[in-house]
Amino acid sequence: MTTDNWINESLYPDWGQRFLVKRELARVQSEFQDIVIFDSFSHGRVMVLDGVIQITEADEFVYQEMLTHVPLLAHGAAANVLIIGAGDGGVLRRVLQHRTVKRAVMAEIDGEVIRLSKQFLPTIGGDAWNDPRAEVIVGDGIDYVKHATDAAFDAIIVDSTDPIGVGEVLFTDEFYANCARILTPRGLVVNQCGVPFMQADELRDTSARRAKFFPHVSAYVAAVPTYVGGFMTLGWAAKDASLTRVDVAEIRKRANASGILGDTKYWTPEIHVGAFNLPPYIARHLPE
Amino acid sequence: MTTDNWINESLYPDWGQRFLVKRELARVQSEFQDIVIFDSFSHGRVMVLDGVIQITEADEFVYQEMLTHVPLLAHGAAANVLIIGAGDGGVLRRVLQHRTVKRAVMAEIDGEVIRLSKQFLPTIGGDAWNDPRAEVIVGDGIDYVKHATDAAFDAIIVDSTDPIGVGEVLFTDEFYANCARILTPRGLVVNQCGVPFMQADELRDTSARRAKFFPHVSAYVAAVPTYVGGFMTLGWAAKDASLTRVDVAEIRKRANASGILGDTKYWTPEIHVGAFNLPPYIARHLPE
Repeated sequence: MTTDNWINESLYPDWGQRFLVKRELARVQSEFQDIVIFDSFSHGRVMVLDGVIQITEADEFVYQEMLTHVPLLAHGAAANVLIIGAGDGGVLRRVLQHRTVKRAVMAEIDGEVIRLSKQFLPTIGGDAWNDPRAEVIVGDGIDYVKHATDAAFDAIIVDSTDPIGVGEVLFTDEFYANCARILTPRGLVVNQCGVPFMQADELRDTSARRAKFFPHVSAYVAAVPTYVGGFMTLGWAAKDASLTRVDVAEIRKRANASGILGDTKYWTPEIHVGAFNLPPYIARHLPE
Repeated sequence: MTTDNWINESLYPDWGQRFLVKRELARVQSEFQDIVIFDSFSHGRVMVLDGVIQITEADEFVYQEMLTHVPLLAHGAAANVLIIGAGDGGVLRRVLQHRTVKRAVMAEIDGEVIRLSKQFLPTIGGDAWNDPRAEVIVGDGIDYVKHATDAAFDAIIVDSTDPIGVGEVLFTDEFYANCARILTPRGLVVNQCGVPFMQADELRDTSARRAKFFPHVSAYVAAVPTYVGGFMTLGWAAKDASLTRVDVAEIRKRANASGILGDTKYWTPEIHVGAFNLPPYIARHLPE
């Protein structure tokens, strides 16, 4: 993966990004994956799992804000939130920014990702790790949703790797069936669905799968600088169709009440609502 | 630039994209720049100028549609259009799709870009080169705007390289002053302003410059897969503030009348209107 002091992302065999490395900070083979954290010249510190860029200090705000604020503000009164994956702590931190949230459970399978993130990427999780509303579990998200109580959560945020390797089981029928069961009637699940310009199968296959268990399946977009290849899609599966139809004024009101408004660098009420308008090259991969 | 059979983009010194090369098709040092065209495994054919990716067959639709359809449909009755740069012919082709357009003048300084594009990227320009409404000039866009008649154009589309090398003079006071002079009272100019996550100076400096000569300066965004680094911005300078306030229904009506509706892969009326909603990390670089 390394040539001289460049790191080449190995996500695609024939195209990708590369970073000039200032200093490698950690290289760990965990029980689940190969973890590398390095300091770059261009994007601050960067975490790589199995050769795929997961997060950089410089642009993490785009992905985290869109993965968190959109479902929580579309719901409007999310009190109990389940996060699966997201071991860097960035989603947990954004979830806990919402005043509506009373409890945030996070299940990350790889304790090494949490440990290394706390050590080398401390600003990404910030104080969230110590928030009394946070319940951080080192364990399998699949098992967690299997054994969780019916209607225990208002929102589930799946921040997984792509559906290969350790992340693959988070894209199965059983997983989505359990998500539907443990969500409240206004509950919804969001998850990262890759960059459809390069990985259209990921959006198409997982959307079809979600549609088996949720009446309202869609996706919304975010332009994440280091998830290269144009828009990435965030998958959306809800029990209640009204959640994608909340207008800009209402989203703004909720964001203000939640303490989010004015505290974002990518998300705005207009971008929230507009993100569901998909370019035709993306929309064609969703179920009819 | 080449390591084995990979081509590394050299736009940024410490981060960028790389392509696995199937076959190099052309490598020419023109009077103005170093031109490379190669066939990739991932994106079809790719054109590179001075080490910077300009266009790929696979994703050219994003940039061309947004650079063309947004200004022309915001105007609503653009008959005379000036294109500066865009030697690959892709903007010319999109401009000529509009039934309102009676004349499209294109001034590209580098005849070698046109010649090589016709030879190796024939689908990008398509039949546009032979359209009787097209007037293709191999010459300096700066000179063209200096000598053009007052109020001769409804829209000017500047598809230049970044403001270094041959493209630099397209970002000067004199150039924008002449653009304002040769535009009709409802006229506007759009130009590519780089990827602000990486090149914020480009958006900030050129926006401030445009604001000297146009009362309404803004920008809109597009997520172009191979202009890596999140949203790219397209600069907007208009004499008439109403052009950015046209609603989705009216844009749809105009697109239908123009023959554009349903013939796009990225642009839609909703995306057109939504593209002016900038993330805060981008909006802060625009003039007050």
